[in-house]
Amino acid sequence: MRFLSDNTASACPEILTAMAAANHDRVPAYGADEWTRRLDRCLSDFFGTEVRAFVVTTGTAANALSLATLSPPYGAIFAHEEAHIVTDECGAPGFFTGGAQLVLLPGEHGRVAPERFRAALAAHPVSLHTVQAAVLSLTQATEAGTTYRREDLVQLAASAHERGLKVHMDGTRLANAVAFLDCHPGDITWRAGIDVLSFGATKNGALAAEAVVFFDPALVKDFELYRKRAGHLLSKSRFAAVQLLTYVEAGLWRRNAERTNHFAQRIGCAAPGALLHPVEANEVFLHLGAQRRQQLRAQGFEFEDWGPEGRGDARLVVSWDQPEEDVQALCLALARL
Amino acid sequence: MRFLSDNTASACPEILTAMAAANHDRVPAYGADEWTRRLDRCLSDFFGTEVRAFVVTTGTAANALSLATLSPPYGAIFAHEEAHIVTDECGAPGFFTGGAQLVLLPGEHGRVAPERFRAALAAHPVSLHTVQAAVLSLTQATEAGTTYRREDLVQLAASAHERGLKVHMDGTRLANAVAFLDCHPGDITWRAGIDVLSFGATKNGALAAEAVVFFDPALVKDFELYRKRAGHLLSKSRFAAVQLLTYVEAGLWRRNAERTNHFAQRIGCAAPGALLHPVEANEVFLHLGAQRRQQLRAQGFEFEDWGPEGRGDARLVVSWDQPEEDVQALCLALARL
Amino acid sequence: MRFLSDNTASACPEILTAMAAANHDRVPAYGADEWTRRLDRCLSDFFGTEVRAFVVTTGTAANALSLATLSPPYGAIFAHEEAHIVTDECGAPGFFTGGAQLVLLPGEHGRVAPERFRAALAAHPVSLHTVQAAVLSLTQATEAGTTYRREDLVQLAASAHERGLKVHMDGTRLANAVAFLDCHPGDITWRAGIDVLSFGATKNGALAAEAVVFFDPALVKDFELYRKRAGHLLSKSRFAAVQLLTYVEAGLWRRNAERTNHFAQRIGCAAPGALLHPVEANEVFLHLGAQRRQQLRAQGFEFEDWGPEGRGDARLVVSWDQPEEDVQALCLALARL
Amino acid sequence: MRFLSDNTASACPEILTAMAAANHDRVPAYGADEWTRRLDRCLSDFFGTEVRAFVVTTGTAANALSLATLSPPYGAIFAHEEAHIVTDECGAPGFFTGGAQLVLLPGEHGRVAPERFRAALAAHPVSLHTVQAAVLSLTQATEAGTTYRREDLVQLAASAHERGLKVHMDGTRLANAVAFLDCHPGDITWRAGIDVLSFGATKNGALAAEAVVFFDPALVKDFELYRKRAGHLLSKSRFAAVQLLTYVEAGLWRRNAERTNHFAQRIGCAAPGALLHPVEANEVFLHLGAQRRQQLRAQGFEFEDWGPEGRGDARLVVSWDQPEEDVQALCLALARL
Repeated sequence: MRFLSDNTASACPEILTAMAAANHDRVPAYGADEWTRRLDRCLSDFFGTEVRAFVVTTGTAANALSLATLSPPYGAIFAHEEAHIVTDECGAPGFFTGGAQLVLLPGEHGRVAPERFRAALAAHPVSLHTVQAAVLSLTQATEAGTTYRREDLVQLAASAHERGLKVHMDGTRLANAVAFLDCHPGDITWRAGIDVLSFGATKNGALAAEAVVFFDPALVKDFELYRKRAGHLLSKSRFAAVQLLTYVEAGLWRRNAERTNHFAQRIGCAAPGALLHPVEANEVFLHLGAQRRQQLRAQGFEFEDWGPEGRGDARLVVSWDQPEEDVQALCLALARL
Repeated sequence: MRFLSDNTASACPEILTAMAAANHDRVPAYGADEWTRRLDRCLSDFFGTEVRAFVVTTGTAANALSLATLSPPYGAIFAHEEAHIVTDECGAPGFFTGGAQLVLLPGEHGRVAPERFRAALAAHPVSLHTVQAAVLSLTQATEAGTTYRREDLVQLAASAHERGLKVHMDGTRLANAVAFLDCHPGDITWRAGIDVLSFGATKNGALAAEAVVFFDPALVKDFELYRKRAGHLLSKSRFAAVQLLTYVEAGLWRRNAERTNHFAQRIGCAAPGALLHPVEANEVFLHLGAQRRQQLRAQGFEFEDWGPEGRGDARLVVSWDQPEEDVQALCLALARL
Repeated sequence: MRFLSDNTASACPEILTAMAAANHDRVPAYGADEWTRRLDRCLSDFFGTEVRAFVVTTGTAANALSLATLSPPYGAIFAHEEAHIVTDECGAPGFFTGGAQLVLLPGEHGRVAPERFRAALAAHPVSLHTVQAAVLSLTQATEAGTTYRREDLVQLAASAHERGLKVHMDGTRLANAVAFLDCHPGDITWRAGIDVLSFGATKNGALAAEAVVFFDPALVKDFELYRKRAGHLLSKSRFAAVQLLTYVEAGLWRRNAERTNHFAQRIGCAAPGALLHPVEANEVFLHLGAQRRQQLRAQGFEFEDWGPEGRGDARLVVSWDQPEEDVQALCLALARL
Repeated sequence: MRFLSDNTASACPEILTAMAAANHDRVPAYGADEWTRRLDRCLSDFFGTEVRAFVVTTGTAANALSLATLSPPYGAIFAHEEAHIVTDECGAPGFFTGGAQLVLLPGEHGRVAPERFRAALAAHPVSLHTVQAAVLSLTQATEAGTTYRREDLVQLAASAHERGLKVHMDGTRLANAVAFLDCHPGDITWRAGIDVLSFGATKNGALAAEAVVFFDPALVKDFELYRKRAGHLLSKSRFAAVQLLTYVEAGLWRRNAERTNHFAQRIGCAAPGALLHPVEANEVFLHLGAQRRQQLRAQGFEFEDWGPEGRGDARLVVSWDQPEEDVQALCLALARL
């Protein structure tokens, strides 16, 4: 029973079906096809504002291309110290931007607190000698399986904009955040001040499809050239675009997110004392200790060790296609520990 | 009737079927799944030698990642002046390598002549003040729809190796070259001295799948880190790997290449006097003149203008899924012009 | 007797004296000192228009920083195929710009012909798939020891501007060009349409000082940040700035350029039949043949072989501090050959 | 009376005299002159082991070129959070390495504690998904005006080497550290495990000259190409090399460092209660409070505010040419406050 990560999941059959349905005829390449051209409309409707949207195949590409568009090579990118761009992208932000520097912010439960960011920004010199404050990157839902409330996003973005920074959101699990907060997708993105969003679909049911969504068309600038020269412009773009279209239009994003959130809640409830973070998405972080971790594994549960070696913490992620029995079994096992 | 490019094509149903068949269960991400792990074996069998093979989604990524692995940032990459890496990748080689410089070589029918390369290499200074000769990149089949003969490849690679350069092959249409030359895939790659190959499948029937094939495992070095930080490591890697497996194991590569080569031959035969290059793959280049170009278009044929404005040349590319009637109609129309 | 290069020369005593005179007290670092702050004024007067001027220590830095300011990472930089940025800077343009690609233009006597550039520009696609035409870089005096006439510069710059390119001039030997053409420095720079100039002093009498001169202040943009992060912002900036001030204000630029031009003319007159290029600056290119090259060397003359191995060509460069006897001896020797 | 920074200082007359003495004849350019060629010998004698040494004009260049030689583009560079490479080089490490990421370590008095580094290293994942631990960069004397003891350096370097990292030392004020610790220059560099050193001379009496010193010749690798393409290879190299030669051979390094260290001690003794860090080099950090800061300034003392706005801290740096009266006056003023 695998709770390793939501990217171990299969793809929604609806999405494969849509891909097969799009598989006919010779159509213009590189995004001039009807599916890709429909993305702007589809995501504008989804977010309730006019957007420009571009498809890429990985979250790292979506994030790094967003950052390259927002930050000069001498820029400083503020992010939570556990953000994916910091710990899991092998230096992609530095590569794509041509050398921008990350400024790491601590924060409970994976969140950057607005006052903490304000302080960091105030402490960042305005000087020719240092990297120039350029971007704030926030993750929603966070890497700790929590979410930002709208009010916090508003404050964070306002502080950033006040000093001329742009705000990027890594929304690899945005669907889970929207589902948990039970809000409109626009509420925690553009209405809160987000400028550019990496909108993930892969972890939540697609094969390989993420949208880079610009809420301000002026920011698109040279994004398309950055994407092309990074090898992320797909020739048969329809097969990626149709994944996003189906994900959004068929409501898979919500259905899957609600299901995985719900299962994560159940798992969290089965081990309330061990919870490291509130469960607000599809990830559960538990302080188990080495022994109980081993016991769980002995019963056939797969998951990742988390945090510093000796502490015995674990991360359990629910995939969109996780059988309910896996969850039931896990809850039972946790209760028994 | 679209003869715009082979990347306007649909994908082979066999490949979509295989993807659907792989769509079950939660499997390890990032290439630790059974499909991706089978790639080395599959391509070793295909090429008749032990290789290391990695999947990416675009030809630009395959080329640029190969070059980044082979060239230092201060390297010189020798290539035909019409190579895809020169004209169609928006500077990807410079980006991925961190600044390597292209050295362009002219050459009839899209080919670099061995003596021409030798001369360019001899003329390239050995000096701290200039970029250091690092890589020779050859395209097979070429951008002019022709192929290199094995003897020429052997000479080119030998000249490169003699001075310490590595040899990259852009094999986005390698299948067409193998089919035309009626040789073993190893004959025009590692046996001729190619070190690293971009082995294309997308144009010839896949959705989005290219293999970077290392014939010398020592050269793999930091390829995987380069791929990861470029956002080209797929989380649900199985869906890309299975495309390559099917492409190779089901013989789609040959079936499709033979078909498109054959159709291209027929088109070439219909306008022998207008041929700009010998037809040795699935592309036909014709000198039509502006008027006949327009007449063809008026009859519903889509294709690209080629070369300098006023000259009235055209490129017609046959896709793997091109209906035979399209080809028949085109041949008729050409004959009538 | 060394005619290897003008960068083998010593420095003008006037410049060392001025440096010693500036060597007192603790003054603000990083260019906030009185000497550096005087650069804008000094060079504005020199060029007859308001400029922004920045000092760096090498021509490669001046060129590459100029290009990084003018070209995006996905840019195309047009230059003569023998330009210093192409052949002698070890890929600096690619490094500083983050991957821009050079587009090489042939041209007699080291010059890009206006119609040739127009044709190249017309042939350069406007497409997402290729590097974007961004900069034309011209060398004055050229690497062949010739100069551009003002009319040609005007045409070249106009063609560039028409399509939105910026025009950079590598003026490592600008003084020699101004002296030869007997014009105002503004005539062959901003009045002809040059946007940014690398204005060399090192080869013509300074120790290590080049100015990057912006004729359009709007283009300065992030130049200072690029310079800082490239390690080219000097802390004790006064010692570099004072070199430029003395070079310009004491008229060393003209005195030295006239002297070296004159000597080069004499050398050229001593071997009129062997001249490869007109002598319009301080460099003489001769077709000698291997034997006569050796005879010259046997008589104690040092110079560089030039061009393809077997051809036996030579480059002789006059330094500002070249003893007249060296030149006399060389003229005699050439006449005797 | 300026205590702003040691880079506001003038240059030692001995150094200017040596430059003038070297100012004769035409000598080979780009470091093939006799002065530059003597650097290896001179610094090998200085450090008591065979080294390769290269001159550049700024500390940022020395550091960033060192790091580019030691770290791959996907590398992680560990450094104190207040290190110059982190806060004062405008992202140069990211630029020169092609995207390496800094990992910041806290530490009292500007020092990285060995156990702290060990912990950070242990916590840094060995994974394809993150930047790869590549370099530890230490500053000696530190940015807090303190020094590392030899034992700590030994431990730090051993931990680094154990995991395959290389160790860089930013020795912009190495002379001050050697003088304070009263040790042999080798003791706190190669004998302690340092692989590559940025050996500063500019702040301590030169005009613009820093040496990059490789204690392991195998690490030199492509340093020279990196330097060239960064525009940091000087054509008239003799004028930079002779600065280093004089700095070392005439004992200026020690004479100046002892003087400035001594003056800093006196200043520290005048305000013992306000000291933020032990005084072990030529910098004094004081907690004064806003009012006393202003009082000092009103008396004509110039210095930098330090640390967070409201805290009222100050940094006072003694330059090699600081008049003793400045120091006396400052001590009196501090005592009076």
